[in-house]
Amino acid sequence: MSNADHLNPPTSRRAFLRRGTLATLAIPTSLAALNSCLPAKPEEARAASSAPPAPEPHAAAVAPPTRAARAEEMDAMHEAGVKAFPAKTEGKGNLLMSPRLDRGVKVYELTCSEVQWEVSPGKRMAAWVYNGQLPGPQIRVREGDRVRIHVKNELPESTCVHFHGLEVPVDQDGVPFITQKPIKPGASFTYEFTVPNAGSHMYHSHHNAAKQVGMGLLGAFIVEPKDKSREPKVDIDTVMILNDMAHGYTLNGKGFPATEPLVAKRGQKIRIRFMNEGMQIHPMHLHGMHMTVIAKDGWDQPAPWKCDTLNIAPGERWDVLVDATNPGTWAFHCHILTHAESEHGMFGMVTALIVQ
Amino acid sequence: MSNADHLNPPTSRRAFLRRGTLATLAIPTSLAALNSCLPAKPEEARAASSAPPAPEPHAAAVAPPTRAARAEEMDAMHEAGVKAFPAKTEGKGNLLMSPRLDRGVKVYELTCSEVQWEVSPGKRMAAWVYNGQLPGPQIRVREGDRVRIHVKNELPESTCVHFHGLEVPVDQDGVPFITQKPIKPGASFTYEFTVPNAGSHMYHSHHNAAKQVGMGLLGAFIVEPKDKSREPKVDIDTVMILNDMAHGYTLNGKGFPATEPLVAKRGQKIRIRFMNEGMQIHPMHLHGMHMTVIAKDGWDQPAPWKCDTLNIAPGERWDVLVDATNPGTWAFHCHILTHAESEHGMFGMVTALIVQ
Amino acid sequence: MSNADHLNPPTSRRAFLRRGTLATLAIPTSLAALNSCLPAKPEEARAASSAPPAPEPHAAAVAPPTRAARAEEMDAMHEAGVKAFPAKTEGKGNLLMSPRLDRGVKVYELTCSEVQWEVSPGKRMAAWVYNGQLPGPQIRVREGDRVRIHVKNELPESTCVHFHGLEVPVDQDGVPFITQKPIKPGASFTYEFTVPNAGSHMYHSHHNAAKQVGMGLLGAFIVEPKDKSREPKVDIDTVMILNDMAHGYTLNGKGFPATEPLVAKRGQKIRIRFMNEGMQIHPMHLHGMHMTVIAKDGWDQPAPWKCDTLNIAPGERWDVLVDATNPGTWAFHCHILTHAESEHGMFGMVTALIVQ
Repeated sequence: MSNADHLNPPTSRRAFLRRGTLATLAIPTSLAALNSCLPAKPEEARAASSAPPAPEPHAAAVAPPTRAARAEEMDAMHEAGVKAFPAKTEGKGNLLMSPRLDRGVKVYELTCSEVQWEVSPGKRMAAWVYNGQLPGPQIRVREGDRVRIHVKNELPESTCVHFHGLEVPVDQDGVPFITQKPIKPGASFTYEFTVPNAGSHMYHSHHNAAKQVGMGLLGAFIVEPKDKSREPKVDIDTVMILNDMAHGYTLNGKGFPATEPLVAKRGQKIRIRFMNEGMQIHPMHLHGMHMTVIAKDGWDQPAPWKCDTLNIAPGERWDVLVDATNPGTWAFHCHILTHAESEHGMFGMVTALIVQ
Repeated sequence: MSNADHLNPPTSRRAFLRRGTLATLAIPTSLAALNSCLPAKPEEARAASSAPPAPEPHAAAVAPPTRAARAEEMDAMHEAGVKAFPAKTEGKGNLLMSPRLDRGVKVYELTCSEVQWEVSPGKRMAAWVYNGQLPGPQIRVREGDRVRIHVKNELPESTCVHFHGLEVPVDQDGVPFITQKPIKPGASFTYEFTVPNAGSHMYHSHHNAAKQVGMGLLGAFIVEPKDKSREPKVDIDTVMILNDMAHGYTLNGKGFPATEPLVAKRGQKIRIRFMNEGMQIHPMHLHGMHMTVIAKDGWDQPAPWKCDTLNIAPGERWDVLVDATNPGTWAFHCHILTHAESEHGMFGMVTALIVQ
Repeated sequence: MSNADHLNPPTSRRAFLRRGTLATLAIPTSLAALNSCLPAKPEEARAASSAPPAPEPHAAAVAPPTRAARAEEMDAMHEAGVKAFPAKTEGKGNLLMSPRLDRGVKVYELTCSEVQWEVSPGKRMAAWVYNGQLPGPQIRVREGDRVRIHVKNELPESTCVHFHGLEVPVDQDGVPFITQKPIKPGASFTYEFTVPNAGSHMYHSHHNAAKQVGMGLLGAFIVEPKDKSREPKVDIDTVMILNDMAHGYTLNGKGFPATEPLVAKRGQKIRIRFMNEGMQIHPMHLHGMHMTVIAKDGWDQPAPWKCDTLNIAPGERWDVLVDATNPGTWAFHCHILTHAESEHGMFGMVTALIVQ
């Protein structure tokens, strides 16, 4: 917890404001539009819209800002963050990967390599990823499918791929020196198995994994059940992968304001597949509507149950349904508040559910 | 975890002993009375009651205390803490707030201000609170009620009130720059909505919230269901709000020995509404009796289930029932032991269930 | 989390390799045997088996190892760890204790003392234990049994024994200065009660407990129900106690590679009783097969539910069933990866389920 600041080193307030403002100018968003018609009491009509120009640094040294000025400055940083959302950044992960078909076998190619990944606007960091994406490309198959996964390692370390949650034969389990030798730098390895069990699963490195998964070697492995009647009917089926290591607090590889909002039409039903690839718990809190929990680690719960804050531990997957009944833009964030907000505004594990 | 000592700086051993003794003299408690009739084996009959007077500091410097003396000293600190319980401190939070009625609307006034809050005996700390209380006054209404909440901000920072768990219209959701502009220092804002869903909810700041909630801007918002038959019949209905930020590890704004015990008559049924407003999990452990979990975040669980240690994550609320069948004074504490005890005795997230 | 390295100071790479190799030579294990027939692609045929002799220290100073050499060195450390598993260490805890019968009362003797405990090969640390074991000897009785437990304290501090989860009369609850005076160094105390409720419970110190439990004063207290038909029929009934304090990350008092594997024949049913005596959550992840959760804190869940990653909080006990259907050697570890693996290989909370 205490490393929140460490993981997400705040840029200088001034730099952030500048960037936030530019982002707002460049990308008119629904939220920016929304801001112009917020309810405001007379008392706060002089709010951020008329924030005074930032004082010169030396002026600040001569006369420290008053309490009121400091409050204005803080609010302006918060506003800039929100107005920048959803901020454009380079790179997008979790893209559905289409397999090549080889005599009925679905064939996937995964290349592990180091890239520079833009976690939030202007914050580029070294990442170890599959196929240039963070999270890696989404693998989505059906129970009983035959899959073959070629892994090529272009990293400076050996690696291994573990199919977390899938009850594969042991020689396909991806644990170095227990089920296979690690895949050396420059080497390749091929996994092949018949997909044994449905649900929301993951694939990730199982070699030096605290580092390698922390650096981004992770992705969603979703298995639809053979019997489609077992599946709830939904309009939107989405994945939210949590991480808290090398790139700070992220949702699907991005930190706020670069996180992607979830957008639904009123009346639609959404399925969210939470997956925690980090080292800490993250109790995800949705505003305005509740979540109905239907599955844990890919297995149906005996009976669905409701909540608005779902505690997701490392390695866990939880599937929930949300009925998008309440129109508006709703904050959706980790309720360990130090993973979501600082005096500089919201960051990290924050996104929004927008019900239109 | 490692900041337990940091958050709860132990006063000097000597000062604590002195204070503990005075507290015991001043406030005869059931526990103090209890202590006089504890079972004791001959071997330990020379226990704390006959603890030698504390050595002079310079004497200690000349001849270090023996192991036995150190054990006695530690026990004496532990005993003083327990004997001081429940220790009187200034200020009590979570007091039920009576609304003013305005043509059928229940009107509440909340003023945010900084106070000095006595967390445990003699430990006064700056707190940001609603109506001078920590937790803020308890709001208790019924599903379908119309409520109006005037918020006046007397803090040096802007703030906002979020009704955590209530599915209000979006413009009442209290998220700065998404649903409203923040309430500036000196300014006011009025929330008004029809209470949409029953259960154990919370209200708290949603602006610079890691700090503001950590400093105390939080309270319980309890909604009774329209259909009373849905409610379990209980003799005692109580709230336990956990926090772990600015004031150390606290239950309802106080650290042991200033926490309030839960007192029941044998045979009574108790409902406890746990709410975590902190940044860490707290697995609350009740001695002597189990808890039956009936609701999560205000929503009934599909079937009640039993436990004695309930893990409560930030932002979560859990409702449990306890049948007070086992007479005695029972420890009730967070089972992250560093949140509850040190070599200086129990502190922080410890209270007792007393079954008479 | 950040104290992973602190709690488990890595020995020098060279020392570890040397030890790992010796352990492998001394103790031929199923895993070591397994390693010789691992699938290997041509590309990685030059793997750890042909790792070059470690360079002389001064040579390393002259010419830093290449990336490839560093990758080889890391893999060799990982391999040595796995090959050493299960490593022999002195001392084994959780041994079933046979009571003496005194006119129908089951009488147990527990002596608290300090020992040197071998946590992992060559890592001997001071531990405070019951009867020389870590975890303490397993107490296993039946609902309704009369038990008497003599506790002798040979530690330099006072202590107390709390029967965590058992709904005993209050004077047997073991909380110093609330239910009894602490047991002084050199003194004894006798607990006696009729076992009130079935399930997976624990006994541990409740005095200066963050230290004393952290140092090892803990054990399993298992109560079989009077009505045997309530129990699932299993072939293997095992306990896994998690700890994360004085001895680093441990399972039943040992860190990998000294943890004990769970060995089952294909088709057998296993019951695992997880107990967390630490200060952190531990989401335990089983590869290859799922777990069916049947009880929490000794109480049946309303309906069994399935998972592969079970989050266990401090003080909690969870009972799960595993059908050993998938043959092979399966990793079984805490999914907070920093509790299980470093660049030096796996350590701490790692074991294996071997299905033969």
